[in-house]
Amino acid sequence: MHTKIKFATSNFHKVSEVKEILSHHSISVEHINLKVPEIQSDNLEEIAKASSIEVVKREHIPIFVEDSGLFIKNLNGFPGPYSSYVLKTIGNTGILKLMINIKEREATFKSVIAFCNEKLSSNIFVGEAYGIISEEKRGKIWGFDPIFIPKGMKETFAEMPVKKKNDLSHRKKALEKFVSWYKNRY
Amino acid sequence: MHTKIKFATSNFHKVSEVKEILSHHSISVEHINLKVPEIQSDNLEEIAKASSIEVVKREHIPIFVEDSGLFIKNLNGFPGPYSSYVLKTIGNTGILKLMINIKEREATFKSVIAFCNEKLSSNIFVGEAYGIISEEKRGKIWGFDPIFIPKGMKETFAEMPVKKKNDLSHRKKALEKFVSWYKNRY
Repeated sequence: MHTKIKFATSNFHKVSEVKEILSHHSISVEHINLKVPEIQSDNLEEIAKASSIEVVKREHIPIFVEDSGLFIKNLNGFPGPYSSYVLKTIGNTGILKLMINIKEREATFKSVIAFCNEKLSSNIFVGEAYGIISEEKRGKIWGFDPIFIPKGMKETFAEMPVKKKNDLSHRKKALEKFVSWYKNRY
Repeated sequence: MHTKIKFATSNFHKVSEVKEILSHHSISVEHINLKVPEIQSDNLEEIAKASSIEVVKREHIPIFVEDSGLFIKNLNGFPGPYSSYVLKTIGNTGILKLMINIKEREATFKSVIAFCNEKLSSNIFVGEAYGIISEEKRGKIWGFDPIFIPKGMKETFAEMPVKKKNDLSHRKKALEKFVSWYKNRY
């Protein structure tokens, strides 16, 4: 059976990643183009959950949202949930400057999906990808992809073909958890 | 006439600064100790306004909140509204590392007061202090005070006696605008 799920975001790059990943599960994604409101919190789960409820309060239909962040161990989790602000101010260049002379370069990319139904009950699905911060930017520019090398790889996320990146990505892991829950439920 | 105004924050240092400043205006501050919810936005005014409305929705009494941020010109406004997160992750040390070899060190400290009445109507008052980012941390630790030198001064905010700092501060300017409006109104 073919299923259609509504995804709220104003980020078109996210839409195409999510569509590509879910196409392998006979799920089509209907993009609801809106700026998802976000609360300030260190906790991605809390942010995504609050956003999903806020969106359903406005739209009155079941919808999922996705929030992700890069957590660098040596920087106490910075930039964490504040990806878009950090990207448009100090950018990847700023992150690399903060990492100068730092040997411990472990980082985790985390994706949180929050699906909220019309009764405003929200479920959370988390995916993580482990890796290190590269020494320089490499590959096409999107988010922190040019500075993140997944564990065991040599290329950054940004240097990989879309499908290879998606196969390793935090977003795919979160989406697959969501999809298997959703298929049992709906 | 002596006036009493309610101030919602979970930040005790802010309470003592605000009390010291308002004591010169025959105003006493009643501290409502709660964690003020904040939205994610680049715009302090929008954050403070939304917070004040949210707090009054919960407490059902007129209250003011205060939000502040340090905007560094060469870093495109970073760290801006995300002071507390940036302080507990990369801290002042991280900011100074980002500023290594940067000659343009201008920065603005901005304070926004949002006063919301019981009808959920919120008014905004803004104060700014101009200065530069120091080359190293100096003085007692609170927020970004150890790395901010106000225009025309040699000491950082953190090296100054409380009263001297308050006389120059963004927070005082915002509070004084608020107070003169409040006294005409109530």
